[in-house]
Amino acid sequence: MALDLDPILDLSLSARIKGLPAAAEGLAMREVGAQGWNLFDGSIPLPAAVIRSSVLTKNLHTFQTYIDQAGAKLAPHGKTSMCPQLFDRQLEAGAWGMTVATFSQANTALDYGVKTLLIANELAGVAEIRALAARQDAASDILILSLVDSLAGVERLESILIDADAKRPFEVLVELGISGGRTGARTRARALDIARRVAQSPVLSLRGVEGYEGLIVTGDAAADAVRVGAFLDDLLGLFNTCRDEGLFAGEPILSAGGSAYFDLVARGLKTDGVTPLLRSGCYLTHDTGFYNKLLAHVGERGVLGPAPALNPALEVWAQVVSQPEPDLIIVNAGRRDLSDDAGLPKVEYHATPGANASAQAVENWSFFRMNDQHGYIRLPAGASVNIGDYVGLGISHPCTTFDRWPVLLEVDDAYAVTGALKTFF
Amino acid sequence: MALDLDPILDLSLSARIKGLPAAAEGLAMREVGAQGWNLFDGSIPLPAAVIRSSVLTKNLHTFQTYIDQAGAKLAPHGKTSMCPQLFDRQLEAGAWGMTVATFSQANTALDYGVKTLLIANELAGVAEIRALAARQDAASDILILSLVDSLAGVERLESILIDADAKRPFEVLVELGISGGRTGARTRARALDIARRVAQSPVLSLRGVEGYEGLIVTGDAAADAVRVGAFLDDLLGLFNTCRDEGLFAGEPILSAGGSAYFDLVARGLKTDGVTPLLRSGCYLTHDTGFYNKLLAHVGERGVLGPAPALNPALEVWAQVVSQPEPDLIIVNAGRRDLSDDAGLPKVEYHATPGANASAQAVENWSFFRMNDQHGYIRLPAGASVNIGDYVGLGISHPCTTFDRWPVLLEVDDAYAVTGALKTFF
Repeated sequence: MALDLDPILDLSLSARIKGLPAAAEGLAMREVGAQGWNLFDGSIPLPAAVIRSSVLTKNLHTFQTYIDQAGAKLAPHGKTSMCPQLFDRQLEAGAWGMTVATFSQANTALDYGVKTLLIANELAGVAEIRALAARQDAASDILILSLVDSLAGVERLESILIDADAKRPFEVLVELGISGGRTGARTRARALDIARRVAQSPVLSLRGVEGYEGLIVTGDAAADAVRVGAFLDDLLGLFNTCRDEGLFAGEPILSAGGSAYFDLVARGLKTDGVTPLLRSGCYLTHDTGFYNKLLAHVGERGVLGPAPALNPALEVWAQVVSQPEPDLIIVNAGRRDLSDDAGLPKVEYHATPGANASAQAVENWSFFRMNDQHGYIRLPAGASVNIGDYVGLGISHPCTTFDRWPVLLEVDDAYAVTGALKTFF
Repeated sequence: MALDLDPILDLSLSARIKGLPAAAEGLAMREVGAQGWNLFDGSIPLPAAVIRSSVLTKNLHTFQTYIDQAGAKLAPHGKTSMCPQLFDRQLEAGAWGMTVATFSQANTALDYGVKTLLIANELAGVAEIRALAARQDAASDILILSLVDSLAGVERLESILIDADAKRPFEVLVELGISGGRTGARTRARALDIARRVAQSPVLSLRGVEGYEGLIVTGDAAADAVRVGAFLDDLLGLFNTCRDEGLFAGEPILSAGGSAYFDLVARGLKTDGVTPLLRSGCYLTHDTGFYNKLLAHVGERGVLGPAPALNPALEVWAQVVSQPEPDLIIVNAGRRDLSDDAGLPKVEYHATPGANASAQAVENWSFFRMNDQHGYIRLPAGASVNIGDYVGLGISHPCTTFDRWPVLLEVDDAYAVTGALKTFF
């Protein structure tokens, strides 16, 4: 194991946690796999979120291999799952480090033993900066990287570190942005000014440059790819200028790459003596919606050969609690259980619980609406469903399904429960 | 105290929980109020969710008084906050019991001492039904009510209870629905058939009838009110028929009422010898969006006099981490911190942290977009903001903000932290 998971595996469960039965009361996380539970035997209250172990394992290695073969390295975005048990597998599979978005996420990663951590955001809070400085001063074996995108931000960070009497310099990447986009300096010239300023700071080290192209998704995949390419050119240009000026301290890092354009990033950021660092997170579970569509575009582009063969590993299972009209069923999962920001869930399976039950693939069952705790499914002609039946839902955008679940169940191909995965949101 | 909150107050915190500082490591929930933290002194990492104590307390009593004076009773929907510390205050303020939506929510309420619990859903799971039957067989002082809306559902529930050898009957309400709506029998005739069937069951007791009018929100408030009125007439008619036929066991319950039409429900369900039971949940924190608009309609209708004077008690505070364009700031809170299903947050306040800092009301700061961990705010001309400043966000739909926060901070009017509130999602 790359991480210290014992404190997580020792955590005690309860039936106050959704998806866990009364029999979970007082059970340790590590004992879940030995209970003989199966999703379909009636012992698991629904809704429950499940990770299909074989699919996840295949995604894990398929994607790491793809990145390795592309000549890149990977610090998977941990914000997707916020599950240190999965961080551990990502690191064991060859990830260079982990990426997170926030202070609490950074603490979670560091507490369980992540040593190389990229906080892909600007830190602006006094409490956070002081606490992270104290952490890295206390442990010489951890590396914490974060971003800066303005002179004002650099000066603020600097003054907080000086006040805190921090011993080690804070290692930062300058963020280049996109006009009309999110964070990041809007021009290379401005980013270069920031880089020069950092390089002169007594308490900061410039470790590289960073960008995030993942928000360039309009629906016109070809035009998006052109914009992504132009942004990567800009980022590479900034990197080379900084390197030429000798602004970097230590081995420089050149990073971009969410889960939409990893092919373009791995190809577009190649430059002498540097291994680009990608931060994709959604590959691990993939999905049946937003990222599945984006993966198809990777395949169509084919810039690094075929797209990696990722498959959906995260499913939410819900139970039919009502059939108030002949073609309408209501299930007991809603937006508190399922992503709702990048498309509605898809009904993939139907099962009637009991001995020898199994997941039957279905088509044209339309999940068309959800409330907080309910989902609405329109049935096609001829579909036969009973109250108490189960539906298996594919999701669109794993990040906003993971964060609805304190504990997910890991299952084998027959949906026998082999373990529990704890998230930290 | 109505509930046993000690196990919650003894829970140990950590900086892995968002909104909590490094100093929270190992701190018990009950110790938070004594730390001398203030939201604006730089000690609290943002984003943080805060409950304004004085506003919440006023909402709590204002709404309970309104319900009392309307001649109704209240089982607040606990799914809104899933915070037993708040359930306790709702019960102390005069609530008849609590409502929940799911099995895990029911366990949470019962574990901390709720004695009268309405599960406002149909139970269809073997594990859940057996566990709840065992719970009520083991504790004669708890009452668990749930819903049925079909003969198939009744038969399923009955057979599971018989298999489980349950000792006490399961007490159920028949749910009347709305054509094109969610759950609930679509006609009075069908609901009456179900009621008659329940009344004959050896393992079920018919305790009343129930409906939910809260999904009738189209944007035409006057037309919505007419539809709600018609539905309440139907529900009352069903109730009276069941009563006339002697189908009810024990004191009958007549329940409807979310947070949108509580005035119409309290008035519309009045009938001889029965106190209607409402289940509003959002009144406790109210909001600055969806429910605030619906409250204005309550005032315009004036059917029970003025609307109760509810004010927003739940705020999410975020920090400015970037100002990449002159009129654009990016804050470190997104859809993982804020409701996104019933309108975007509103920027209510701006504060510059430090000694003597305070919340300054702002206008026309437009929160126009969010990603998972970021919010985008367009500034009006003349607004002056620095990196590191704070913004106070009002939210729309408390249910989907509460569920983003394992711990919320309770604050006084000067934003001094007076305690911590634990949620169970």
